[in-house]
Amino acid sequence: MISVKPVGMQGKWQERFAQSQPLMLEVGSGKGKFITEMAAAHPELNFIALELQEVAIAYVLRKQVELELPNLQLILGDGANLTEYFAPEEVTGVYLNFSDPWPKTRNEKRRLTYKSFLDQYKAIMAKDGVLQFKTDNQGLFEYSLVSMNNYGMKFDMVSLDLHNDPKIEGNIETEYEHKFSSKGSRIYQLIGRY
Amino acid sequence: MISVKPVGMQGKWQERFAQSQPLMLEVGSGKGKFITEMAAAHPELNFIALELQEVAIAYVLRKQVELELPNLQLILGDGANLTEYFAPEEVTGVYLNFSDPWPKTRNEKRRLTYKSFLDQYKAIMAKDGVLQFKTDNQGLFEYSLVSMNNYGMKFDMVSLDLHNDPKIEGNIETEYEHKFSSKGSRIYQLIGRY
Repeated sequence: MISVKPVGMQGKWQERFAQSQPLMLEVGSGKGKFITEMAAAHPELNFIALELQEVAIAYVLRKQVELELPNLQLILGDGANLTEYFAPEEVTGVYLNFSDPWPKTRNEKRRLTYKSFLDQYKAIMAKDGVLQFKTDNQGLFEYSLVSMNNYGMKFDMVSLDLHNDPKIEGNIETEYEHKFSSKGSRIYQLIGRY
Repeated sequence: MISVKPVGMQGKWQERFAQSQPLMLEVGSGKGKFITEMAAAHPELNFIALELQEVAIAYVLRKQVELELPNLQLILGDGANLTEYFAPEEVTGVYLNFSDPWPKTRNEKRRLTYKSFLDQYKAIMAKDGVLQFKTDNQGLFEYSLVSMNNYGMKFDMVSLDLHNDPKIEGNIETEYEHKFSSKGSRIYQLIGRY
């Protein structure tokens, strides 16, 4: 069963999946290329696509139905309300992919790596959970390195050119990533933990 | 008076300068373009150039004598021995510019942002001191972001393209930086504190 407006699921997500296994959340899934390919490639993990835009989540839902992925669920919702959707330690991994850079200083609080969002991820993540952040936006990446460091997060790895990085295997692209990296944009990645 | 092999100066560096004022140390000064221009541009600070290579320190010494900088002293010595040259809290700022990247994993301990070097800088730095690191080497910068973060250092700023960064004013180039940035290499900068 798929419902994009799940109510009362906090702490009960594992009941929705075929198997109980680590839960990975993408905040801002867009049309879902990344999360559906991840779910297909990693049957040993459960996934949730969270997306604010109804038009976009409809694309993810269609892919979900076509591919019959038993390890993917969807939420039409806001990344600022994660603690309403999830119980503490319910989520093992969080993915932030090509989030809106909100380049003006007055919009700093809207960036998904601003400290209030880092609070939200921390509140729902397991102790050994990791946050994986990808962007092609240099300013957002610089900001996020400082913000996540100042928050006290520990970095596992940084890549300043993900698509040409010998350390990286099995990178799965988003729609946006595919388009912009094929035009020559550098892709940046940071993996950190609390 | 200039001596490139100062003995017993630990804790007494301010006596060597015309005025007692915050002391900034460059570890690995090369031929000294950066440190001599910094000293000329910042008479309100004292500077020390530390360099392992005698041939290079001879260039710095010549510039020092020509420019008659009252706020620059030199050390022919090794960055691994900083606690022999300086007393705790004697240094306010440390500059690492285009250090050898030592790309092979087996040489990690030689990189100037390896934890044993971070220990050395911490041991001689004032509480409000900052470490400023510049490189054009992507691998070394990725490594240093993780190493300095894992050490517990707090980042003040990160620039992934220093020479095209609207946040930056008054950057003074090293010989190497001038040559490679004019060929189009990106220059990275990290400023952090303990």
